[in-house]
Amino acid sequence: MALIVQKYGGTSVADPERMRAVAENIAFTKRRGDDVIVVPSAMGKSTDNLIKLANEVSTKQPGREMDMLITTGERISMSLLCMALADLGIDAKSFTGSQAGIITDTVHTKAKILEVKGDRVREALAEGKVCVVAGFQGISTEKEITSLGRGGSDTTAVALAAALGADACEIYTDVTGVFTADPRIVPQARKLLHVNFDEMLEMAGAGSKVLALRSVEFARNHNVPVHVRSAFTWEPGTWVTSQEPNMEDPIISGVVTDTSEAKVTVVAVPDRPGISAKLFEPLAAANVNVDMIVQNTSHDGTTDISFTIPKADVATAQAIVERIANEVQARGVEHDDGIAKISLVGAGMKTSPGIAAKMFRVLADENINIQMISTSTIRISVVTAAADLEVAARSLHTAFGLDSGQAYSAPLPERK
Amino acid sequence: MALIVQKYGGTSVADPERMRAVAENIAFTKRRGDDVIVVPSAMGKSTDNLIKLANEVSTKQPGREMDMLITTGERISMSLLCMALADLGIDAKSFTGSQAGIITDTVHTKAKILEVKGDRVREALAEGKVCVVAGFQGISTEKEITSLGRGGSDTTAVALAAALGADACEIYTDVTGVFTADPRIVPQARKLLHVNFDEMLEMAGAGSKVLALRSVEFARNHNVPVHVRSAFTWEPGTWVTSQEPNMEDPIISGVVTDTSEAKVTVVAVPDRPGISAKLFEPLAAANVNVDMIVQNTSHDGTTDISFTIPKADVATAQAIVERIANEVQARGVEHDDGIAKISLVGAGMKTSPGIAAKMFRVLADENINIQMISTSTIRISVVTAAADLEVAARSLHTAFGLDSGQAYSAPLPERK
Repeated sequence: MALIVQKYGGTSVADPERMRAVAENIAFTKRRGDDVIVVPSAMGKSTDNLIKLANEVSTKQPGREMDMLITTGERISMSLLCMALADLGIDAKSFTGSQAGIITDTVHTKAKILEVKGDRVREALAEGKVCVVAGFQGISTEKEITSLGRGGSDTTAVALAAALGADACEIYTDVTGVFTADPRIVPQARKLLHVNFDEMLEMAGAGSKVLALRSVEFARNHNVPVHVRSAFTWEPGTWVTSQEPNMEDPIISGVVTDTSEAKVTVVAVPDRPGISAKLFEPLAAANVNVDMIVQNTSHDGTTDISFTIPKADVATAQAIVERIANEVQARGVEHDDGIAKISLVGAGMKTSPGIAAKMFRVLADENINIQMISTSTIRISVVTAAADLEVAARSLHTAFGLDSGQAYSAPLPERK
Repeated sequence: MALIVQKYGGTSVADPERMRAVAENIAFTKRRGDDVIVVPSAMGKSTDNLIKLANEVSTKQPGREMDMLITTGERISMSLLCMALADLGIDAKSFTGSQAGIITDTVHTKAKILEVKGDRVREALAEGKVCVVAGFQGISTEKEITSLGRGGSDTTAVALAAALGADACEIYTDVTGVFTADPRIVPQARKLLHVNFDEMLEMAGAGSKVLALRSVEFARNHNVPVHVRSAFTWEPGTWVTSQEPNMEDPIISGVVTDTSEAKVTVVAVPDRPGISAKLFEPLAAANVNVDMIVQNTSHDGTTDISFTIPKADVATAQAIVERIANEVQARGVEHDDGIAKISLVGAGMKTSPGIAAKMFRVLADENINIQMISTSTIRISVVTAAADLEVAARSLHTAFGLDSGQAYSAPLPERK
């Protein structure tokens, strides 16, 4: 008998029919003999609809009240799911973040989990019940209701799995797993049977939307095996574990593409110490999430500083950057919405030199200009014009041998 | 400076525009110098929609999960209301039933309030905040989320007013107050400026929907002055207080009509001891709410027993009653959906004999047949054919002097 945590995304529980289909899968798991903890997201677009409603009511939305509002979505789906389970003769009990003892810090709308107590969940499991725990929410150290931010239900699921020593955390979503590339952009993309935590972290950081970054960090830190799979086809998906690749495995696991960022360039900044701090400190204070930063050595006493930020933050950033540029007597500020970020991710990169060079060669052969470069030990990202995205992603996918052959086939964690 | 509890019904907060209008009224009260506790209902039909959704998902709805589901409606409206208040520069804080310390028994979907702790509400009031408390919900002695049943938000408001020693509890709704009759049935109906608790209790019991019966009981037991008024016109409404009527006041305060009940008759029941207990005990056990009961003395050794129940309970009751009728060898069971209950309510009745006689005379003059009669010290109710409802109500309204003249004008409780 294993303990399995199952997380279901918004599209998986979008309507009564989906809710019943999910209940069938939970009942199947329970009847197989496993203990089950379920973490449902809010139904379909309901969280977005609540936020829209809030915008219609007011221009000021205190974080505490926003959390009170948007945490209702998961409560609706978890109680409905328990009812659907009751119909199938499965004894289930729902728990709010507070009832499950998911303790967070006090940062409303993007709280971090500090601790999972889980006493009531443990009790209910011991009584043979399926436990349905509201995703995306907790109770702060000051006893206020908090939400964990977008993708928070993934984090809830992994944190529960870690705290209760689950054998696996299944993330049911609307795709069948983690792919070598976005199939809409690279039609030859294949599903990966396995990626390791570091790769998944880099993929999430590079713009992959399959798993929320924080949930992967949590899974890695607590070594929780995660199984990303579809709640529509129920086929086996992608395992995310600590397992390192073998020598025979492909060096590159995937090509990740991201068009959600814009590039800002501060032109002809006087090249003296402290300028970067002056620029990026106020951006951090304004919660602008700066991704890539490039600054070249200067020749004429000035330098250009470029960085990428989410398109949604451009307006906020623009005002700050223009003020600083003026203060430090830079020549001006430019921004470009028409960029794409393309990343190669692969744990094998650590032991294989020359990946970057090969990547640049492939892009050069396609006559694609590289605007920015950034690297980690297992990732290389470049920024290009948005128009080059498809050609770049497809040619890299082919050049690095991702198009054909078998998917990664190292031994899978045993399904108990 | 007074402490005012304001309860807003579902239609009062049905959409963003209404939400802002309500926030304006709260801000007005707060700026006048009063402390304010607000109890909003769920927006418009949202509770009904949640119940509909539950019916679409499952046939079995455990009470605990139903409460988890339907208590979300008030959380949505209270957090939105706090946001609308923030827009107006009013510092407001929302509280769930649990956070406000509304302790109930463990009967899911119709819990009773046992105690209101209110510590966090008191603290927030002391800090000058407007407190917005979710209506209709509490936390049970076993730490489960409970709901108080239909009309529960009225009870929440009155219970908070009692526990925190409020000067008044304002119930904002979609009518302008308590009327001498339902204006859709009796066009000459007038708004009452005052009724006392006992009258209001009898009116609620006789079918008036303006205030939930339990909230009136609570207000009477804790002597909380209640002001029923409109959230659309904001005009002064009807005060419900402990004040007894003067000699000069009209004897009858109102004519209450009710078409929500059906009549069941067990025909030719052998007239021996214990039959009534045998019949009504299983109905009570099945939660069928029996209202009027009539049994005549017998002449031929058998008697007919008639009683009224909510139409919604007819199916449940029918099965039980037929089983018992068979056991006790009654001749049969009949039921009649086409009935109306018409009640006269007035505290002055206690000291004025002959009201019943006059009522029967008025109905007889209109050729209306009375099927059942029941009385209390300040109420007389009769059951007639549903077709007679309008003529009966209008003729009684006229005959008891409710059509014309000034509304009751005893000194009103001072508005601080």
